[in-house]
Amino acid sequence: MIAEIIAIGSELLTPHFQDTNSLYLTEKLNELGVEVGFKTVVGDNRDHLTSAARTALRRADILIFMGGLGPTEDDLTRECVAAALGRDLHRDSEIIAEIYKRFAKMRRKMPENNDRQADILDGAEVLPNALGTAPGQWIETESGDQNQYVILLPGPPHEIKPMFDEQVVPRLRAHLPQQFIATRVLKVAMMPESECDQRVAPIYKRYADVHTTILAGAGEVQLRLTARAESQDAAQQRVDELSGLLEDELDDFVYSTAGESLEQIVGYYLQMRGATIAVAESCTGGMLGERITKVSGSSRYFIGGAIVYDNEMKSLFANVPPMLIAQHGAVSKEVAAALAEGIRDECRASMGVGITGVAGPTGGTEDKPVGLVYHAVSDGKRTNVVERKFLGDRDRIRWWATQQALDMVRRMLM
Amino acid sequence: MIAEIIAIGSELLTPHFQDTNSLYLTEKLNELGVEVGFKTVVGDNRDHLTSAARTALRRADILIFMGGLGPTEDDLTRECVAAALGRDLHRDSEIIAEIYKRFAKMRRKMPENNDRQADILDGAEVLPNALGTAPGQWIETESGDQNQYVILLPGPPHEIKPMFDEQVVPRLRAHLPQQFIATRVLKVAMMPESECDQRVAPIYKRYADVHTTILAGAGEVQLRLTARAESQDAAQQRVDELSGLLEDELDDFVYSTAGESLEQIVGYYLQMRGATIAVAESCTGGMLGERITKVSGSSRYFIGGAIVYDNEMKSLFANVPPMLIAQHGAVSKEVAAALAEGIRDECRASMGVGITGVAGPTGGTEDKPVGLVYHAVSDGKRTNVVERKFLGDRDRIRWWATQQALDMVRRMLM
Repeated sequence: MIAEIIAIGSELLTPHFQDTNSLYLTEKLNELGVEVGFKTVVGDNRDHLTSAARTALRRADILIFMGGLGPTEDDLTRECVAAALGRDLHRDSEIIAEIYKRFAKMRRKMPENNDRQADILDGAEVLPNALGTAPGQWIETESGDQNQYVILLPGPPHEIKPMFDEQVVPRLRAHLPQQFIATRVLKVAMMPESECDQRVAPIYKRYADVHTTILAGAGEVQLRLTARAESQDAAQQRVDELSGLLEDELDDFVYSTAGESLEQIVGYYLQMRGATIAVAESCTGGMLGERITKVSGSSRYFIGGAIVYDNEMKSLFANVPPMLIAQHGAVSKEVAAALAEGIRDECRASMGVGITGVAGPTGGTEDKPVGLVYHAVSDGKRTNVVERKFLGDRDRIRWWATQQALDMVRRMLM
Repeated sequence: MIAEIIAIGSELLTPHFQDTNSLYLTEKLNELGVEVGFKTVVGDNRDHLTSAARTALRRADILIFMGGLGPTEDDLTRECVAAALGRDLHRDSEIIAEIYKRFAKMRRKMPENNDRQADILDGAEVLPNALGTAPGQWIETESGDQNQYVILLPGPPHEIKPMFDEQVVPRLRAHLPQQFIATRVLKVAMMPESECDQRVAPIYKRYADVHTTILAGAGEVQLRLTARAESQDAAQQRVDELSGLLEDELDDFVYSTAGESLEQIVGYYLQMRGATIAVAESCTGGMLGERITKVSGSSRYFIGGAIVYDNEMKSLFANVPPMLIAQHGAVSKEVAAALAEGIRDECRASMGVGITGVAGPTGGTEDKPVGLVYHAVSDGKRTNVVERKFLGDRDRIRWWATQQALDMVRRMLM
């Protein structure tokens, strides 16, 4: 089974935007044993889109169209796929009612052009969209004696992902031959990719039947293991065996083997210990708090904290003595430690985190260059401070800093 | 002139890697007046690649193949494009000599399979590669009475970019009619896409010579205008004229006409007014601070603030009376206003922002459902409060909330 993913939108043919949905969909398709053979990007252009649909019908078994289902005149996916398939469209009154309701909920009137979103291909199943006005569509057809599946999905990532997971994956699974695939992802914090690979390559190379991919991000390496076998148990066993050996080798650098994010893991540990946490952030400007509170339910362990951008705020909110700042500079291990201890006291939390550094691109000096960041974590008994010099742009340096701080919290809780 | 960019490589069809070269090439092609009509990604598969080449020959004037020029058996671009064009390959002895020299320089012996990199399509011009072993190829052909240009380029970004700039752009320029293109991007805050489109469509439709694209994100709509004309002035004039009319229609919903982000615009206004700002965030957990400090130099106007996740923090850091919280609930317009006023006082900033809401997915009630957010901005003289009910998941609700708050700051400063 070969899939083709077709992303629609003239903006995706500019230098400014890129389809990223296809990466998510590819992962889910691979889990079903489906390989993506082609990806196509086409603009909001009737001839081009119809031609792309015809081409895909000739070469793929599963066709996934993403985008172009909105209410504007630019949104041509419905019409063009209908033309390529030689089917008609009909306007579905139930969907119009749904869209009306949605607008009513937001206390707004539905603009008339939204009607177009209710155009359905003859013979299509409607895939309701809980998170937007454009419903998806599922069409089964035939090419030769082979089934073809044509799927229309909305473009916005927060709409396409749940629709694909909840409505498309189960339908595909019901139609595809059963596959036994086991996967596992090991997430490793704050270890350079080359060091990680050097340590794990001799191990995973002994497992030729397990496909291992190494992926490096900022402050994180992921080892992705995939095995296919004649039964689910057999596949799972191979993946688990290799995963166990890799965990032994990498030890406490591995923070997750079940897909959790670092902030989720920190949340688990905090809850397990009945602990709470507060943060005082300078150069990260709120990013650490934002990451911790990304996790639903984080109010059980996250108290809050302060964004101590200005030096006076460091004293006001985290009780850092102004003399300490004058003596060592705002970017120093002493101030980081004082931030962690001070915010912990102020917020009466079990743990406090302090971050201070130079995010750049301006503001660096010879002594305190761009990328220099001090991270401190205090639990009342001890305060750990780590100095790092990160490379990259402002965004990347700030991300690294939050990653380092979260990893320090994790290690202190372990 | 329509271009198609074809990226070749099975890794580009996995969930982990993505072609980014095409964004660079698109920018350069647009500058030449060439639009990219299609982008295709295809794996290292003979049938798939030949079929993709045939499809592109049918629908594009300029075909750019990226990758698959290496020495391994997987590298099939030369053969497959030759097959699609019905041309033969010949092995170029000069190129073999070049590759030998390159290996000698690195003091390594040339592996025999590198010979394949010297296979040249009959009639092709060789594009030398100073930074790698794989040369590019330039082929002129005809489709009907129209010229077609078929270009083979290496995949690694540091090889393709100089080769494209130095060898392909000048060749294309010599063959293409001179073009004059002007563009403008209008960014609109907190207006639904459909409402925006309804208001602007009657205007931009009168400008058939200006291509208008509408792009919607969370709390933001972008209108991208592009015009071609017989001179740069004429193109610019058409874009500016339409842009002026759209700005008149959308009035103060337009926050940028030169590409700035909302947080940059807020930063400009604050600096222009010599004002400073502080934030007190509950459900956004630091995201507003993070967005404001994404802008380099934000320390000139951003003082800091508090992440008041726990109710006690609302009182501790922003002086919100506990009675007020008990009376109205933490998620209320009264508490939002008190947060904005309190943090402004505490931080001695010109402006204060307060955000409190239910980010979900849990924690909603009938009275205070998931997505309900109160935003307040105070400048000491007045405090504006906006209640919104956002749809979507936790991340999206939080993003919308920061977008709404930034837009309120912008409007108060205008």
